[in-house]
Amino acid sequence: MLKRLPRVVREQQMLDAAVKVFAKRGFHAASMDEIAEVAGISKPMVYAYLGPKEDLFLACLQREATRLMEAVAAGVVPTARPDEQLWNGLRAFFAFVGKHRDGWQVLYRQSRSEPVFAGELDGMRTRIVELVAGLLEGAWAQSTPGRPVAPDDFLAMAFAYVGAAESLADWLADHADEDPDRTATRMMNFVWIGADGLLQGRAWKA
Amino acid sequence: MLKRLPRVVREQQMLDAAVKVFAKRGFHAASMDEIAEVAGISKPMVYAYLGPKEDLFLACLQREATRLMEAVAAGVVPTARPDEQLWNGLRAFFAFVGKHRDGWQVLYRQSRSEPVFAGELDGMRTRIVELVAGLLEGAWAQSTPGRPVAPDDFLAMAFAYVGAAESLADWLADHADEDPDRTATRMMNFVWIGADGLLQGRAWKA
Repeated sequence: MLKRLPRVVREQQMLDAAVKVFAKRGFHAASMDEIAEVAGISKPMVYAYLGPKEDLFLACLQREATRLMEAVAAGVVPTARPDEQLWNGLRAFFAFVGKHRDGWQVLYRQSRSEPVFAGELDGMRTRIVELVAGLLEGAWAQSTPGRPVAPDDFLAMAFAYVGAAESLADWLADHADEDPDRTATRMMNFVWIGADGLLQGRAWKA
Repeated sequence: MLKRLPRVVREQQMLDAAVKVFAKRGFHAASMDEIAEVAGISKPMVYAYLGPKEDLFLACLQREATRLMEAVAAGVVPTARPDEQLWNGLRAFFAFVGKHRDGWQVLYRQSRSEPVFAGELDGMRTRIVELVAGLLEGAWAQSTPGRPVAPDDFLAMAFAYVGAAESLADWLADHADEDPDRTATRMMNFVWIGADGLLQGRAWKA
């Protein structure tokens, strides 16, 4: 019966189990025995499908990153106003983190603290920064077509956005009772309204 | 002659050398031989003063973190207006990173990707987040005394600030031609003016 499951379904089960165990134990302490047990599949089969623990972790990292990018991209409507684009992108991002706290653990916290995976994570982060820089450039062209800005300015700004969002996502992952939409609103207040506006009593509303 | 140098001076020389070598080679590839050579001190003496490589790295991390905190604290004048406080703190922070690019490498990039030092780094980061949250709370009380805000709101906001500043500092560390004051201005535009104001053509000025 088990054998009739298509390979892709079986792999997803293994990855689900692996993300759970890696998030809970950390890369070093996680055992292939426990991953196989949680997946309900024999250990040799896990090895046969996804290889040794490093490969399995990398597969988890890539799957979580792809899901995250897809969720954010689906939230962004290129024809929307800049603040709507930002709000939709941020909502999708924090909703993903809120729903996949395990995935976030594996994606950011663990791969960041493992030199073997740092290069992979850096590559993903670069793609996200470039995506955000492109959105900023689009928003800028839409709003103030007359004022030229150096491409580096958008990149630097995108670094600040991505850093702020990652740090808030860490905070969200540690607060089980926080509504991800509320985190997205915090970020909109930060990014869209700015401290000056906030201190004057302004706030961002969807 | 060399032996007459006070212990504390000798230790600083070793730490200077170690920061340089760790920044260049990474924690694993850095050798005690090279550190001793750069410091102009024999390897047994480096061990005698500061212990094995892990202890030496930890000492580097703690020294760089202390310097960074001191630089930022010196820049903040508690009686200044909120935007001046923020500007002074950010200027001090990015000036530190610009002047100690090696130190930033060791402090953030390397210790973040070494599980052994991640706990130490987390502890430092928590202290910085709490410092920023306290400053935000002070600025808020000064500007809008009537509106109560939950302590969690300041903490979440501080996470966003610290994440944005770290990410921009990474960017600065990679751009040798960038003036740290310009990076501080980018961050002020981001944090103080907000995207809405920027798109309306506003900008922050010291």
